[in-house]
Amino acid sequence: MKKMILAALAASGLIASLPASAQFAKPEDAVKYRKATFNVLATHFGRVGAMANGRVPFDAKAVAENAEIATTLSKLPYAAFIEGTDKGDTKAKSEIWTDNEKFRAAAAKMQEEMVKLNVAAKTGNQDTIKAAFGPVGQACKSCHDNFRKE
Amino acid sequence: MKKMILAALAASGLIASLPASAQFAKPEDAVKYRKATFNVLATHFGRVGAMANGRVPFDAKAVAENAEIATTLSKLPYAAFIEGTDKGDTKAKSEIWTDNEKFRAAAAKMQEEMVKLNVAAKTGNQDTIKAAFGPVGQACKSCHDNFRKE
Repeated sequence: MKKMILAALAASGLIASLPASAQFAKPEDAVKYRKATFNVLATHFGRVGAMANGRVPFDAKAVAENAEIATTLSKLPYAAFIEGTDKGDTKAKSEIWTDNEKFRAAAAKMQEEMVKLNVAAKTGNQDTIKAAFGPVGQACKSCHDNFRKE
Repeated sequence: MKKMILAALAASGLIASLPASAQFAKPEDAVKYRKATFNVLATHFGRVGAMANGRVPFDAKAVAENAEIATTLSKLPYAAFIEGTDKGDTKAKSEIWTDNEKFRAAAAKMQEEMVKLNVAAKTGNQDTIKAAFGPVGQACKSCHDNFRKE
């Protein structure tokens, strides 16, 4: 069932295809890249949340822009969790590779909820956006709890 | 003239708008974020170049995907070159702030050439893409030469 979901997401373009060119010269390049993608993702996702939750003034255009960027970024990190990148300057747990199907499903869940948030963000309705924000945050947390070291 | 170009780019959406929410909690957050955006930008721009120049097999779909991501990322770093972020773990030269108009124009030049590369990438024609790749690389180098420490 999970495999079907992953296949469907891949087919729909939610998970970027992984051509031969998507290689990294060194394992540490992959680690640095995925950390960079998460930094950019968290920054823009955080801005959506700050506006959805009223911590900063709501700005419909800014919410939509930030959600769009976060959605693009949500597709990027996972191609960099390649073999041999479980060491060095990383908090990645070995379970990412030993329980890879569960990890891929957790990633797909976040991407799926992010797409829903992106759709919500385009409505410009703060309550709709706030409702869609929570599940993304939960998906982030769930994956961090299982696959990221403290 | 430069101001007109910047205004035109801003109006056309090439430079992302900078709402109140686009703040960083700490100066080091801005530094970390802009380095992250450049890492992701360079990774995807590099993949376009590798295929344009034949270092890896040409894949029209992958070129288009990578150029699209690079274009999105090209818009992000400059909102993070804020006052007070000229120190710490950064190679940013003080000229970014003392000659800010020149820096902004250099950034806009790169963004402009990247948009042209993105258009070229969608043609799927390797020669067209290769021709559009060079000017982006030159814009990167020019800005690095003037505004980035060794």
